[in-house]
Amino acid sequence: MVGGGEGAYIGNIHRLASRLDGHWQLVAGAFDVDPDRGRAFAIGQGLDPARSYGTCQELIAGESGRADRVDAVAICTPNFTHYPIAKALIEAGFDVICEKPLTATLADAVALERLARESGRFVGVTYTYCGYPMVHEARVRIARGEIGAVRTVQVEYPLEWMAAPIERAGNAQAAWRTDPKKNGRGGSIGDIGTHAYHLAGFVTGLKLDSLTADLATFVNGRALDDNAHVMLRYQGGARGLLWSSQVAIGNSNGVRLRVFGETGSLQWFQEQPNELIFTPLDGRVQTLKRGADEMSVDAKARTRTPPGHPEGYLEAFANLYAGFAEAIRARRENRVPGPIGQNLPLAHDGLKGVAFVEAVVDSAEAADQPWITPVAV
Amino acid sequence: MVGGGEGAYIGNIHRLASRLDGHWQLVAGAFDVDPDRGRAFAIGQGLDPARSYGTCQELIAGESGRADRVDAVAICTPNFTHYPIAKALIEAGFDVICEKPLTATLADAVALERLARESGRFVGVTYTYCGYPMVHEARVRIARGEIGAVRTVQVEYPLEWMAAPIERAGNAQAAWRTDPKKNGRGGSIGDIGTHAYHLAGFVTGLKLDSLTADLATFVNGRALDDNAHVMLRYQGGARGLLWSSQVAIGNSNGVRLRVFGETGSLQWFQEQPNELIFTPLDGRVQTLKRGADEMSVDAKARTRTPPGHPEGYLEAFANLYAGFAEAIRARRENRVPGPIGQNLPLAHDGLKGVAFVEAVVDSAEAADQPWITPVAV
Amino acid sequence: MVGGGEGAYIGNIHRLASRLDGHWQLVAGAFDVDPDRGRAFAIGQGLDPARSYGTCQELIAGESGRADRVDAVAICTPNFTHYPIAKALIEAGFDVICEKPLTATLADAVALERLARESGRFVGVTYTYCGYPMVHEARVRIARGEIGAVRTVQVEYPLEWMAAPIERAGNAQAAWRTDPKKNGRGGSIGDIGTHAYHLAGFVTGLKLDSLTADLATFVNGRALDDNAHVMLRYQGGARGLLWSSQVAIGNSNGVRLRVFGETGSLQWFQEQPNELIFTPLDGRVQTLKRGADEMSVDAKARTRTPPGHPEGYLEAFANLYAGFAEAIRARRENRVPGPIGQNLPLAHDGLKGVAFVEAVVDSAEAADQPWITPVAV
Amino acid sequence: MVGGGEGAYIGNIHRLASRLDGHWQLVAGAFDVDPDRGRAFAIGQGLDPARSYGTCQELIAGESGRADRVDAVAICTPNFTHYPIAKALIEAGFDVICEKPLTATLADAVALERLARESGRFVGVTYTYCGYPMVHEARVRIARGEIGAVRTVQVEYPLEWMAAPIERAGNAQAAWRTDPKKNGRGGSIGDIGTHAYHLAGFVTGLKLDSLTADLATFVNGRALDDNAHVMLRYQGGARGLLWSSQVAIGNSNGVRLRVFGETGSLQWFQEQPNELIFTPLDGRVQTLKRGADEMSVDAKARTRTPPGHPEGYLEAFANLYAGFAEAIRARRENRVPGPIGQNLPLAHDGLKGVAFVEAVVDSAEAADQPWITPVAV
Repeated sequence: MVGGGEGAYIGNIHRLASRLDGHWQLVAGAFDVDPDRGRAFAIGQGLDPARSYGTCQELIAGESGRADRVDAVAICTPNFTHYPIAKALIEAGFDVICEKPLTATLADAVALERLARESGRFVGVTYTYCGYPMVHEARVRIARGEIGAVRTVQVEYPLEWMAAPIERAGNAQAAWRTDPKKNGRGGSIGDIGTHAYHLAGFVTGLKLDSLTADLATFVNGRALDDNAHVMLRYQGGARGLLWSSQVAIGNSNGVRLRVFGETGSLQWFQEQPNELIFTPLDGRVQTLKRGADEMSVDAKARTRTPPGHPEGYLEAFANLYAGFAEAIRARRENRVPGPIGQNLPLAHDGLKGVAFVEAVVDSAEAADQPWITPVAV
Repeated sequence: MVGGGEGAYIGNIHRLASRLDGHWQLVAGAFDVDPDRGRAFAIGQGLDPARSYGTCQELIAGESGRADRVDAVAICTPNFTHYPIAKALIEAGFDVICEKPLTATLADAVALERLARESGRFVGVTYTYCGYPMVHEARVRIARGEIGAVRTVQVEYPLEWMAAPIERAGNAQAAWRTDPKKNGRGGSIGDIGTHAYHLAGFVTGLKLDSLTADLATFVNGRALDDNAHVMLRYQGGARGLLWSSQVAIGNSNGVRLRVFGETGSLQWFQEQPNELIFTPLDGRVQTLKRGADEMSVDAKARTRTPPGHPEGYLEAFANLYAGFAEAIRARRENRVPGPIGQNLPLAHDGLKGVAFVEAVVDSAEAADQPWITPVAV
Repeated sequence: MVGGGEGAYIGNIHRLASRLDGHWQLVAGAFDVDPDRGRAFAIGQGLDPARSYGTCQELIAGESGRADRVDAVAICTPNFTHYPIAKALIEAGFDVICEKPLTATLADAVALERLARESGRFVGVTYTYCGYPMVHEARVRIARGEIGAVRTVQVEYPLEWMAAPIERAGNAQAAWRTDPKKNGRGGSIGDIGTHAYHLAGFVTGLKLDSLTADLATFVNGRALDDNAHVMLRYQGGARGLLWSSQVAIGNSNGVRLRVFGETGSLQWFQEQPNELIFTPLDGRVQTLKRGADEMSVDAKARTRTPPGHPEGYLEAFANLYAGFAEAIRARRENRVPGPIGQNLPLAHDGLKGVAFVEAVVDSAEAADQPWITPVAV
Repeated sequence: MVGGGEGAYIGNIHRLASRLDGHWQLVAGAFDVDPDRGRAFAIGQGLDPARSYGTCQELIAGESGRADRVDAVAICTPNFTHYPIAKALIEAGFDVICEKPLTATLADAVALERLARESGRFVGVTYTYCGYPMVHEARVRIARGEIGAVRTVQVEYPLEWMAAPIERAGNAQAAWRTDPKKNGRGGSIGDIGTHAYHLAGFVTGLKLDSLTADLATFVNGRALDDNAHVMLRYQGGARGLLWSSQVAIGNSNGVRLRVFGETGSLQWFQEQPNELIFTPLDGRVQTLKRGADEMSVDAKARTRTPPGHPEGYLEAFANLYAGFAEAIRARRENRVPGPIGQNLPLAHDGLKGVAFVEAVVDSAEAADQPWITPVAV
């Protein structure tokens, strides 16, 4: 692992999630921009001091020479460092698991996606929400035609934690997220709107045609948007509405997806992730439960407990890690991966996410609000 | 009453609602385009045959000559007839209660609003959702500053009933709603989006600056939009997102309003109308209950039963009728109306609704998607 | 109407509910124990002064002599006066609509039920919750066998309003409810537990075999139970658990019924009365919506608005009044009443309610907790 | 680990949960009654073949001689074998983590609890639901007096999976649970009612005074109860109602606890475990969220993710394992354990659970239904 040391939120999530199923073991890391602090953290995690590195360069050098070198490296550093770190790792022959967004700029994303493609290295991107079993269930059912052709998608990702100017009150997480140099051009749209966009595309299988957006910055002095409204037109005629916000008081982590098709609808709310609400045309509102017999192979492969025994965010994250393990193993063994190793978020998804954010910001900045098509969809 | 005879949905609602509190008595009517059927219906309702009219003209003629002439006339006819009927009634000196939309065209709305203003006649418009006590509670709390300055409004009104082409399968209600001549230029946006727009403005007190919209028609052969996405910019900087749909399977009557301010948020869902969800910054999600001691005078004036004894749609509608009665009485008695007679939807609100629909359609039809400002806000 | 004057809660509910559908008109009343206050109230309600009576005796005398005498008299007085008033009315040939409980003592209930039976007078009892359309829907579906033979019933009626000793702080409603002389022997069990018991029996069609109960009085100095736990054994082997409480903070009017059968279950919660939750064996949890096409004739007869347009407590109460009107008309016209005039709560249901409360109190007072069978089931 | 091999549900849960936080490593096991199958399973789990034992006796013999012997042994075998296995392990000096119920008979439970006490060995019992952070939050708030003295407790644990006679259709899990020899005298009450009883006592801190119960067997031919109703009287005057069922269609794992005190109430539903509903007297219904700043030290110690990022059943189970690790470490280091190592379910809780089940069955079998006091509370 690179980054994710003391006090890091997402680094700890990666460690918990990778441990759950026993597919991964944390054996080496460069956890901090401060080499000493990083090494101390590594040793505190029980790592071999020889593999407790001060920098990513040391890690590459140290691991490259080992017979038992790491299978993959997770990148949990701030957005603007993703590209150079990922590039160095890939060029040194390592597989990579990268936090979203793939990179902070579109140019970096295009380059990294090409590098991933040409090198043949595995590059997973942790779009967490597609780790949830009921998100796969929704995807499978739509692909099977259970709600008919999709007409409209309502997707939102509101948060409340940045409703006040906490970045000026010592909150480090908020500070880098509101700094265009570290975060990229998108504020709420880059941090969380990209999750919503990925989720909608993942579940429906739709590709974007164009979008038009309205960004707002409600907290005085903030340099990036903290609220984004986006109207989406998908190829083939479906429409979408996307809302992301960092100032929506009352929302802890309000990812909500609703998909309406010709003959039915599906709804999934991340805070009640074990349920998927299905309504057929002229029929009853019905609750599909994770773990039920009728679930798809795809959902079952991502399920550990029976209905009524809630699984959550860590299990979803663990499903991504289990999937990455399976995909890497299958490639080595030259076989098709099992269900959990399929439909994973990869470099191209990362590129699409960055391209979406760029297009949203471009649209919002254009005086005449044209409909804009991202460079990758 | 004019219109609202045999088989009419909204006419029956008007009768039920007006009866509940004993403020109104139905004594005269011209209920049908077919004079005989209208007269028969009137007699079936227990009306005096002398006041069971065949046409609106007859009603005006008949009532004008009576000492006990009706206090007001409710108009429950198709949209395109609202204007001529209302005009004739107002010019004959009657007060009017008009179904929304006020008129089918913008020109008619402008004319009718001016006529209402200049004549001094009372013209109420039945924007039902502002009859709910918890909608008033939300309005009062925002006006008091309980959530600070409003930042973003999420409002939606999805329905499912027109997901299939039922207008071609004999459904009369769907038939006139999809006929531009009878309904006006807006499909879902005119039929229900206008309710959502009114509700958002009513609760927040915000006035629109401009909007940009995307309309879609998902049912083949339908002449008007059945799904509308609108981005709103309010005066002063607040933003909004509005969705209306007639094809959103799973939604019976899904009016939902969420308002996010600097220091708190409020949420109200029409299908659970007795509750208002309030969250203060850094605080807990809390449920305000209709009928509770802490409710405002405005909410209490619209409440008949204690908490836990659900009131619903008919009570909300009855609150409008009670308010219209109080406003008319207060005018006659030359006094300020009590709380239930204040904050009523009147002709100017009706005009704003029509202007909004026009602006949405104009925006959607404009190739370059400019931000458009309605002629009345 | 007898009782239900100034400040009375339930009297006003009776007036609102009886007015909604236009079947009843309030034309006479003796509204108060204070004759002058009662007459003043009547006149304030717009009644003819000649029919604004000071006492029930005056009402009987006055109405008996009129050609247009009242069709029925609603009794909204405190429990212990129900019997003498009802008796006098029935003996004078009036039909009666009586608030629950039918009487304050078992002996009175037995006598009144016999009088009703032998006189042929109509005696309706306002067990409100069986006025809800979805309660009828549950009853119909169970009778049709949609959940198989009933195994267990979970029914509860918790309230919070008497969690503190408000009867000693001037609350008149609480004062008579905690006075054994005015209320009868059952506290929470008599006031609200009897509703729960009636609802469970009404929906399932089950008759009680025996019960065992545990009563508690949590507010110091209160003379009657304010919390009741009852285990039920129905004839045929089904079981039940009943909880009533006047001290359950957080519950406004928490009537909840859950019925589990061999092949499915049904759940209904009074605060969300427009929905009925149905789950078949090995199937999905499904929401049945009031107003949907698939609803039974019985539910539709009690429905005024489409799905998504909430109906509530007043509409349920109005359904009882509509049902009483239909039953009385059908008797006069010597025909079978329509659906709304069937399955009404009548004198025998009132007797069963009183017998249930007596058995609960007897069981709780018996040192050895035997299973007790009420005298009427 | 003893038991929990191929096809075992709960064994896998133990493995997942113990792995999550990195406190435990699975290094030895005797996973199956069939020694060969057990050894093969162990090797499949990646264990050292030398520590892949065929029987518990082999495990004891093998581990006793090692310097790196296991820290503790988890017992995941059928109920009736808990006692002999735990006894042998404790006598050989091992700490033990035992699935509930502690034993299948009261005599065994009494003996095992004494042995645990006298030996000083650690004996944890996996009452899963007290691993949830919001259950601790409820406990802390009640102990702090936030709802005043507890008046009544409503606790239930309904399941649907045994609504049909699946034990006769090849379901092994159902087969041993319905066999008195393997399961003990309590059916639903022993399998799940004991969880509900423990949860209620854990959260409120109340000790039982006495109970009276009604057991039913709804599936023909089943030898044990599949539905239990119990009325509880706690020391000090509080009351409770407990329902457990294996035939309640619509309930996946419906653990629900509601506690009503003098000045407030708390509600927790296992299927929405990240929330705790709090209502103060005369106040608003409020949602407490896991992970929020205002949570207690006890809840925070059991929390890995922020509000809105759902944790679930595995995390609760992992909290027990983390607590057991901390308690064992603290004992070795002769210090007070940190918060996660406190308030753990231990042998005495196991004994109380078995004594409760015995008392319930005794009460139900007694013809005269006396109130019965369990031998340990």
